[in-house]
Order: sequence, then C-alpha cells, then structure tokens
Amino acid sequence: MKLLEDRIIKDGISADKESLNVDSFIGRQIDISFISELGNEIYNLFKDEGITKIVTLEASGISLACMTAQHFNVPVVIARKLPDNGIMPDTYSSRVHSYARKDNYDIVISKSYLNRHDNVLIVDDMLAKGSSLTALLMLIDKSGAKIAGAGIAIEKAFCGGGNLVRDMGIRVESLAKIKEISKKGGVVFA
Amino acid sequence: MKLLEDRIIKDGISADKESLNVDSFIGRQIDISFISELGNEIYNLFKDEGITKIVTLEASGISLACMTAQHFNVPVVIARKLPDNGIMPDTYSSRVHSYARKDNYDIVISKSYLNRHDNVLIVDDMLAKGSSLTALLMLIDKSGAKIAGAGIAIEKAFCGGGNLVRDMGIRVESLAKIKEISKKGGVVFA
Repeated sequence: MKLLEDRIIKDGISADKESLNVDSFIGRQIDISFISELGNEIYNLFKDEGITKIVTLEASGISLACMTAQHFNVPVVIARKLPDNGIMPDTYSSRVHSYARKDNYDIVISKSYLNRHDNVLIVDDMLAKGSSLTALLMLIDKSGAKIAGAGIAIEKAFCGGGNLVRDMGIRVESLAKIKEISKKGGVVFA
Repeated sequence: MKLLEDRIIKDGISADKESLNVDSFIGRQIDISFISELGNEIYNLFKDEGITKIVTLEASGISLACMTAQHFNVPVVIARKLPDNGIMPDTYSSRVHSYARKDNYDIVISKSYLNRHDNVLIVDDMLAKGSSLTALLMLIDKSGAKIAGAGIAIEKAFCGGGNLVRDMGIRVESLAKIKEISKKGGVVFA
C-alpha cells in the first residue's frame, strides 16, 4: 500500500538494520484518519470472508483493530498481556516469547468472547518474528473459532514471521512488507 | 447519557459495592458502533474548545480515545505504563498509584508528541479515585500544553476522583455517573 510505504519513509525511524520505530503515527501517537485508511484496506482484503470478530493484542494493535472493525461492523476482542504470569479463571491463554524484552509472558482472552461459531480476523500493527501472532493463533484455536487470517500494517519480512505463519496455511496480508533496512536506516520494500 | 446507562444495567457485572465490570462492551471486547456513539457525545461536549490532541492511558482507554478522535480529527497520544520503573529518555513522566494492584507505576509520553501549543482533551473509559487522571494531568502540565478537560465514559462518583479533579478547576464530563452500587450489585446513577 503506497500510502503506508510513503509514510514509513517520511516518519519511520530506524537506528540500525533491525529496528523501525513508527510510534509517531501508529504506535504511541495515532494519526486517526490515516489509520482508518489502513483499516479500510484490510477490510477490502477480507470483506468477503464472513468475519464475526476482530482479535488483537494490547496495546499497540488496538487502534488499527478498532478502525478496521468499524468497516466490518464487528466487535474487537483484545487479548490481554499478563507479564506477572497471573492466572485468570475462564480464559483461553497462550505463551509469547518477547525477543525485544528477552522474556516470556502469557496472553489471555475471556472464554465468553470467542466460541466455535466465530470467524476471526487477527489485526496487528507490526509482524516481525511472529511470536505474538503464533500465540494468538494458538489461543484462538483453543476457542474452536475459525481463523480467516491476519491483517497486518507493517511486516518486517526479513524477520521471517510472516512466512512462518503462511507456511502454517494461514492467510497473512501485510499492507507494507519490508525486505530490508540498510545500515544507514534506509527502508527497502519487498 | 441514557444509551450508556442502559448498557451498564444490561451488561455490566458488579460482584459487590465497589466493582463494576464492563469488559464485555468497553474494556476487553469493544462494541465498536456503541463506542463511536460515546465518542460523538464527548465530541459534542468539547467541540468548541479548539482541541488539538487527545491523550489517553493504555490499554483500556485507547478504543474510546480513537473513536472520539475521529470526530475531532486530531491525533491520539497514548501514555505508556512502565510497570518495571524503567527510565525512558526524552519523555514526560509521572507516577500512578494503583488501588486495584496495590502498587505504583510510571506513565510516560514522548516529548515530541505534546508541547505548549497543544490544547489537550483527556479521554478514558473509567474514573474512580482519580489516581491515573491526576497523573495524566501532571504529565500534560509538564509539557506546557493547555488542558481543556476530561471526557470519561463511566465515573464511579462514590469513589470521589471526579470531584477531586473538578475541585482542581478541571472540567470533567462523564457520560454515566454512578452514585452507588447496592449490595446485590444494582447500579444507581447520580
């Protein structure tokens, strides 16, 4: 999606070959009409799939999930992070390994928000090695719901997570796919 | 706002005289068209104030903040929680006492997202004792921005936080104000 690629080049900050900070428009500061356009693009990709729920992971995925859900007119279910390994009754849970923080945490969703009649679209702002996406897939699978796919804003294709999940047979659509980040921080799209 | 009061009575869960769980429509599962109506109501209350930014606290305030920001067409700035007392460079920060978790945590906003030319509306889903709201006020004040007020979905008026902040001279508008919760969990509005 050219709109997103242009914005990444304009406002994304990459200090090295791994990192890309897009906090100024999608992470910590939300350009709301821009994010709504991304949501509309994800809607166009999955509109014929009979989506009943959108699932995302707190906190950075929530804004894009909400703006996407508006176009589908379905509820957003937010998976909660439990960094302190707390146990919550009546939830589905799975474990995420955080490469950034070098630790593990659990994510949970109340059993009352997902069931086998649901057809779920996962929405998230960023996909790198795929650890949180695969954990969401496992969690949703426990509920018996069908998974229509994942709509992602930015995929760091060089981290491999997107193809890892595609190889599991899951449809993954990314609005901007980054092939590499040069030493000087220049972004090359796939 | 009758729409919200009716929904609290229908779907809110209160186990005792203190607690009210609205996770099924505003917290963990987002009824997106409903939340957009709440956002529109907050817009109507503050539309003449020249708002330039909406500030909220992750994670439960993000959905209402985004749906409100759509009506204003201004960015949302999300204050980040740092439970591990981490220090982040180039941020404004303040300390929150969590009565629920019985501990303290810091909240931060990047200095590049707020400045003295901004006129800020704080948006949050819930206001009880006011600890997170007063911390947000202090944090925004450090940036030099003007604070137009706070738009809150549900105020537990019996906890006192709303009037604490009003007594500081801040305009606080709550779409549903709860006077008390009976022993059997019945909600009485102010």
